[in-house]
Amino acid sequence: MEGAVVLLDFWPSMFGMRTRIALAEKGIKYEYREEDLRNKSDLLLQMNPVHKKIPVLIHNGKPVCESLIQVQYIDEVWNDRAPLLPSDPYKRAIARFWADFVDKKIYDLGSKVWKTKGEEQETAKKEFIESLKLLEGELGDKAYFGGENLGFVDVALIPFYSWFYAYEKCGNFSIEAECPKLIAWAKRCMQKESVAKSLPDKEKVYEFVLHLKKVYGIE
Amino acid sequence: MEGAVVLLDFWPSMFGMRTRIALAEKGIKYEYREEDLRNKSDLLLQMNPVHKKIPVLIHNGKPVCESLIQVQYIDEVWNDRAPLLPSDPYKRAIARFWADFVDKKIYDLGSKVWKTKGEEQETAKKEFIESLKLLEGELGDKAYFGGENLGFVDVALIPFYSWFYAYEKCGNFSIEAECPKLIAWAKRCMQKESVAKSLPDKEKVYEFVLHLKKVYGIE
Repeated sequence: MEGAVVLLDFWPSMFGMRTRIALAEKGIKYEYREEDLRNKSDLLLQMNPVHKKIPVLIHNGKPVCESLIQVQYIDEVWNDRAPLLPSDPYKRAIARFWADFVDKKIYDLGSKVWKTKGEEQETAKKEFIESLKLLEGELGDKAYFGGENLGFVDVALIPFYSWFYAYEKCGNFSIEAECPKLIAWAKRCMQKESVAKSLPDKEKVYEFVLHLKKVYGIE
Repeated sequence: MEGAVVLLDFWPSMFGMRTRIALAEKGIKYEYREEDLRNKSDLLLQMNPVHKKIPVLIHNGKPVCESLIQVQYIDEVWNDRAPLLPSDPYKRAIARFWADFVDKKIYDLGSKVWKTKGEEQETAKKEFIESLKLLEGELGDKAYFGGENLGFVDVALIPFYSWFYAYEKCGNFSIEAECPKLIAWAKRCMQKESVAKSLPDKEKVYEFVLHLKKVYGIE
């Protein structure tokens, strides 16, 4: 039933982490292949010729690209367990809206936090926190964005938690002080094995960011 | 069954056109409300407080934002007719991939074609045509991206056709000369009433672009 599942990925990728979590939530066994992004494999270039980016999910030899599309694909193929999107069309639309919001705001603003300094960095930090507060508002008093269980928005957002420490060290600020409910949610997610085993250690991500800063010549 | 459907929109918006086409394909009656984007209505700000953008689809008083999410919502709520997404999960993933590709490439590159000049414009034209050629490759010999019938990718892409004339006049190039099969597809789409009545006249869009150029001080 499962067929052969292969994931082309790179360990610090928030986008790859989403797909890892979705596969783990569904209990799908798969082959993980780490890519060297400075020397992309022929398989990656062949499976994602348009964007040439990880993650690529290969199911029975056929590629699915773009992490949120992969998560929806996984949810639709293995629809007999651990649903990620709600069944109600309106709730699905709302889940898609906030996952799209994460894609449009959180990655870019987070990157700006560690890539810039001075006034530019202050603006990025402010906008980053504002976006997280909007997400915190959407979470409300629910255990997860998905309600009682992990859902599509949780899967879209929680990978960034593994980068929060790096953002905080580079930006000299505390996300928890600004968004305590969101951090409580993140810690709740981390108690799930599907999440904990899909996210890298925060110190390791911070080291990776320091390495990137050197590569990019950012002081 | 239908409930009250309202669309907050702005006539030259490619994103609004998508939702108009999806509603027309499904035969949904709705109230169209034109927004003045320099003086947004209280309803728009209340219904889309996060992005404050049109189009907003309001169904029974509840908002759905972001055009591709609206099209999927419409397809899921009125699922007894004119399906836009395929039923097979893999084909759905591929349709979502190309609709996402349109969002990531075509709007930005098209805007660059009319907003820039000189070398910057030449690069934009080249990349715009390259992106259209990728879409033409995906279309292949099919009547529509959706196969025999209009589908999700058709709905995502065809609105840009109403802007092609403006891009061509501003960029002094012919899209048809580069992508004849794609233009044949566009003309085929325009024979459908759902598309023809949802797209504005190309001359009117060109006049709007000339107006924008004046507003932005672009010579």
